[in-house]
Amino acid sequence: MKAKVKVTLKNGVLDPQGKAIEGALGSLGFGGVNGVRQGKYFEIDLAETDRAKAEAAVKAMCDKLIANTVIENYAIEIA
Amino acid sequence: MKAKVKVTLKNGVLDPQGKAIEGALGSLGFGGVNGVRQGKYFEIDLAETDRAKAEAAVKAMCDKLIANTVIENYAIEIA
Repeated sequence: MKAKVKVTLKNGVLDPQGKAIEGALGSLGFGGVNGVRQGKYFEIDLAETDRAKAEAAVKAMCDKLIANTVIENYAIEIA
Repeated sequence: MKAKVKVTLKNGVLDPQGKAIEGALGSLGFGGVNGVRQGKYFEIDLAETDRAKAEAAVKAMCDKLIANTVIENYAIEIA
């Protein structure tokens, strides 16, 4: 199965990279941008064929390695 | 409107960061991982209220700044 994981900064956590992109978009002439937040995206190819087990495995991977749960949220999508 | 953009490496483009994560997952005892690819994720908050115009604006932003279209694909979701 394939798992798609989005890791985003929690609300209130400063995102200087997002701010830089917001500034760069402004310099390039893109108006009307109220904010940009950057996160990470992972595609994990799993041998597991059971949906529930795959989701549980990916959740454990996120908690242990992929996301820093102190400052980041993650969302898992199994496809 | 809010736009969510996923930027992923094209097939065939080497992803050493994904390979490193794959290796680290193996070291942590997670078996059955066939592959990991890392991408980027952006949430862009737009003043624009027209869906089609918002999508066109984000597409232009991706082509000009957010994605390197030589080696990366992007997918836009307007919410």
